[in-house]
Amino acid sequence: MRILGIDPGIARTGWGIVEVQSSTLRQRFGQEFKVQSYGCVETPASLPPEQRLKSIYDSVINIIKEHRLDVLALEELFFNTNAKTAFIVGQARGVVLLAASENGLPIAIYTPLQVKIAVTGYGRADKSQIGQMVKAILKLEKIPKPDDVADALAVALTHAFSQKMRGL
Amino acid sequence: MRILGIDPGIARTGWGIVEVQSSTLRQRFGQEFKVQSYGCVETPASLPPEQRLKSIYDSVINIIKEHRLDVLALEELFFNTNAKTAFIVGQARGVVLLAASENGLPIAIYTPLQVKIAVTGYGRADKSQIGQMVKAILKLEKIPKPDDVADALAVALTHAFSQKMRGL
Repeated sequence: MRILGIDPGIARTGWGIVEVQSSTLRQRFGQEFKVQSYGCVETPASLPPEQRLKSIYDSVINIIKEHRLDVLALEELFFNTNAKTAFIVGQARGVVLLAASENGLPIAIYTPLQVKIAVTGYGRADKSQIGQMVKAILKLEKIPKPDDVADALAVALTHAFSQKMRGL
Repeated sequence: MRILGIDPGIARTGWGIVEVQSSTLRQRFGQEFKVQSYGCVETPASLPPEQRLKSIYDSVINIIKEHRLDVLALEELFFNTNAKTAFIVGQARGVVLLAASENGLPIAIYTPLQVKIAVTGYGRADKSQIGQMVKAILKLEKIPKPDDVADALAVALTHAFSQKMRGL
């Protein structure tokens, strides 16, 4: 199973693809989750908003077309922010949802609490703890940067764990 | 000039097309602004958000393709709301901006204050006063309903007035 995690934002949209190895051998002897690819779509503040949104949308469409994906994992809308931030993040999230919808990609939504608990086992984990755990679980050399990429991989891992728990 | 005004929302997206007659004869003798078409895209709450967004996006794409439009007029993001509303409206607004961007349609943004002053001459006008003036200016039989449609026509008219002022 290939899971695309996305952390949408108008300036930076982090994304990462986690592959879940289905072999039982692999499940017994180590590495079960593998990063397939990850990256960050950056859009310059000098562009008008609609062009920044189109750039995010086009990039997500390309990611979907380039990889055989099974699901898009996203964090739920978070409401503990101000309306200006929510509006701007909402616009970016809207085009990401649209890209998935247009390509028939199912969408799984997790709360920030679910992500923290799935990845670190601790509901009040901060950004750096999440980054550390993403690096450890996926056996990466370094913590993926910017934070948006680590967050995208974290929500993809959350989906992987939640599917694994269901399977047990 | 044909102006598409849109008032985006996840449940209802109002839209209206105002045509500005360029003949000087018409400018002297009456009706200068004409409604070309208007309507409201409604999406059922029973659908998942991504399908509602896709429905809005597809409808806007169809409106753009069916009419030879010169510009999309929108109200600015308004920040005097709560983050939940802003997030949800932001998602809908994002796919509307994307639809315009993908079709090369220029975008003009007006503040709620600019719209009120342009349409009613009064910065504290309420919904019903805006509806009344939209009906009067466009010589409609009734106030267009729901409010989202009247608001969409109001922002289209604001662009029409602003272009006219510039031309003088």
